[in-house]
Amino acid sequence: MTVALTSLPRRRLLTGSAAALAGAGLASWSQGALAQAAAAKPLPAYVGWKNASDVIVHSSTTLETKRSAFGTSGITPSNQLYLRNNLPAPDATIVADRDAWEVTVAGVKSPRKLTVRELKTLGLETVTMVLQCSGNGRGFFPSKPSGTPWTVGAAGCVVWSGVPVRAVVESLGGVSAGMRFMTGTGGEKLPEGIDPKSIMVERSVPAAAMQDALLAWEMNGEPIPLAHGGPLRLIVPGYQGVNNIKYIKQLAFTAQESDAKIMSHGYRMSPPGGKGDPSQPSVQEMSVKSWINSPLPESGTLAAGGTVQIQGVAFGGLHAVKGVEVSIDGGKTWQKARFIGPDMGKYAWRQFVLQARLPAGTYTLASRATDTAGNVQPETRGENQSGYNNTSWADHAVKVTVA
Amino acid sequence: MTVALTSLPRRRLLTGSAAALAGAGLASWSQGALAQAAAAKPLPAYVGWKNASDVIVHSSTTLETKRSAFGTSGITPSNQLYLRNNLPAPDATIVADRDAWEVTVAGVKSPRKLTVRELKTLGLETVTMVLQCSGNGRGFFPSKPSGTPWTVGAAGCVVWSGVPVRAVVESLGGVSAGMRFMTGTGGEKLPEGIDPKSIMVERSVPAAAMQDALLAWEMNGEPIPLAHGGPLRLIVPGYQGVNNIKYIKQLAFTAQESDAKIMSHGYRMSPPGGKGDPSQPSVQEMSVKSWINSPLPESGTLAAGGTVQIQGVAFGGLHAVKGVEVSIDGGKTWQKARFIGPDMGKYAWRQFVLQARLPAGTYTLASRATDTAGNVQPETRGENQSGYNNTSWADHAVKVTVA
Repeated sequence: MTVALTSLPRRRLLTGSAAALAGAGLASWSQGALAQAAAAKPLPAYVGWKNASDVIVHSSTTLETKRSAFGTSGITPSNQLYLRNNLPAPDATIVADRDAWEVTVAGVKSPRKLTVRELKTLGLETVTMVLQCSGNGRGFFPSKPSGTPWTVGAAGCVVWSGVPVRAVVESLGGVSAGMRFMTGTGGEKLPEGIDPKSIMVERSVPAAAMQDALLAWEMNGEPIPLAHGGPLRLIVPGYQGVNNIKYIKQLAFTAQESDAKIMSHGYRMSPPGGKGDPSQPSVQEMSVKSWINSPLPESGTLAAGGTVQIQGVAFGGLHAVKGVEVSIDGGKTWQKARFIGPDMGKYAWRQFVLQARLPAGTYTLASRATDTAGNVQPETRGENQSGYNNTSWADHAVKVTVA
Repeated sequence: MTVALTSLPRRRLLTGSAAALAGAGLASWSQGALAQAAAAKPLPAYVGWKNASDVIVHSSTTLETKRSAFGTSGITPSNQLYLRNNLPAPDATIVADRDAWEVTVAGVKSPRKLTVRELKTLGLETVTMVLQCSGNGRGFFPSKPSGTPWTVGAAGCVVWSGVPVRAVVESLGGVSAGMRFMTGTGGEKLPEGIDPKSIMVERSVPAAAMQDALLAWEMNGEPIPLAHGGPLRLIVPGYQGVNNIKYIKQLAFTAQESDAKIMSHGYRMSPPGGKGDPSQPSVQEMSVKSWINSPLPESGTLAAGGTVQIQGVAFGGLHAVKGVEVSIDGGKTWQKARFIGPDMGKYAWRQFVLQARLPAGTYTLASRATDTAGNVQPETRGENQSGYNNTSWADHAVKVTVA
């Protein structure tokens, strides 16, 4: 019984030489992977600490976690977490003295600037949360929307620590009357000669989202890396990645949504062929979703007769994920999968596993999650011009062959 | 209000130059820390991927996490996790093809060798667990026992993934009659010319510990690093670190405890002045324990009048931790602390926090944990020759000054 399913040689392999790989008797697909890695773009310097063999470098501001690199530990380690920055990261001088970073809090009774040093005295909370780019799954749209063609790897499950926004707001007398939105502004340096509104990172979410939001200084047990928004990032659990403002320099409670272009025209669910405008739904709350991380097509042909552990991740966005079903026949029939590992709270993802015995044949493996509000992951994607919010279980299915 | 308590400049700082630090206007203590770091031993090559500024290098096989480096995220990132190897790690060739590693399972109805590749077909589970060296806290013993003088940093909370030992045993027909212990043998290369029993890493725990034990291949979302026991490690949740056998090459259910010296005479709770022998209790289950990670004496003098977030970690060993109290007067009075972040299961630690306002003065901060079985962390250590199992809350207290 030599089922090579969950046993993909992974990142460590790519640190060896091709000769060493050959010596270890590995299958030809991994030689192919090595060649691919050799041809891949190198890591940008400011994320040079990432595991190169775990990520796909799309550009200097976009890295995707390889589907085969996701482990089963629940937490995505920082060195394999995806990256998607709308603007180049600020200079590293901003993390030389992290506690000196200042954020202006406005739209409250007593608006003022606070340093990270002060924020650290006001409260402490930790949340485990799926961070996901709203374009994750764009690569499955046949329309090939512009933007990074992410498949599943523009997501991770991350632990954040910081001060609850509600504690900060309480210390400043509460939210001013009539403020319906929480608007965060990033501290990226803007290019000169361009209307700042056309390029700045500024997003609004409903003010109610402040209940579980953090101003965070720590990610996965360490000060937030510069590339991921350190020294201070707005964390809005359950909301798509773009709403979690990096290098946050202003947190304002506002009567209206931001009129920055990234809010008014960007990240809108516009119809195919259309353009984004403020009348369309914005990319905000995440929806229930799951996908399989093993086995994958790149496992190659699997040996027959053995047991297979089909495993992946599932999350519910604003609601906790309640259950996951797995299909080995492309969605004709479903079996209930089992969650493994701890429940890390409603904003975290859960690892699931289904044990199956697969006779020789070709199998289309799919997963379908349900959240505690009763929402079921749909079969089909919601078509939209920019390829946002793809939760289709059919798009995320994988085909494997058993010899 | 400029309380600089939880705002210690940490690891990132030490990557800058002294001049940059001076330019950032940092307090003199951090200049001292820089000088200390410069004088510290460099990281051994096989753990060169660790964050040098987060750890104290005691020797090539012993690294301690700095107390000030522990974050508040629950999980200890691999790059700051302590290291304690009884023997030098095997050559890195053993992780070139991880799935080919073999473990012999004995003391079962159908004993045989299994590869990691086969193990991965038999089951999948994930556990979050405190990994702690039994000598953690030895540095607080006034008797200065021989061995590494760990204070709090020979511990971390780590996520492990692998196959449940009970699933492996079931697949092999169950444990043979009369077997009372689960005995793991490490795959370290033994020096020649020495009786193997005198040096090998082989430990026995009660067979019942198999219920929650794993044969693990993943740690914190990545294949287990060589230094931490990859490609395969026996994980026995709730048990002291030494029982979690690295590079496991044999897992045997046995009628007797191992007669290897590390079991028969090492890691025994021998009386002060005595020597270890098999009649004394072995270092096995962990006990309820907690400590404060911020503020610390190295915070320097704190500014008065502000709020302080006193935070640390607490765990219960074999039982879940139920609650933590914090004292600001060296244990005369206690206040209930609040847990933050998710409950990651009974073997994980919990982060706790107590918000306090401290007028000018000197404070002795202590924490005292209680587990679900009603065990309370004691005031005093249990004296023993080798400095094991130090859970004294008094030893772990810290003194801070508010100006």
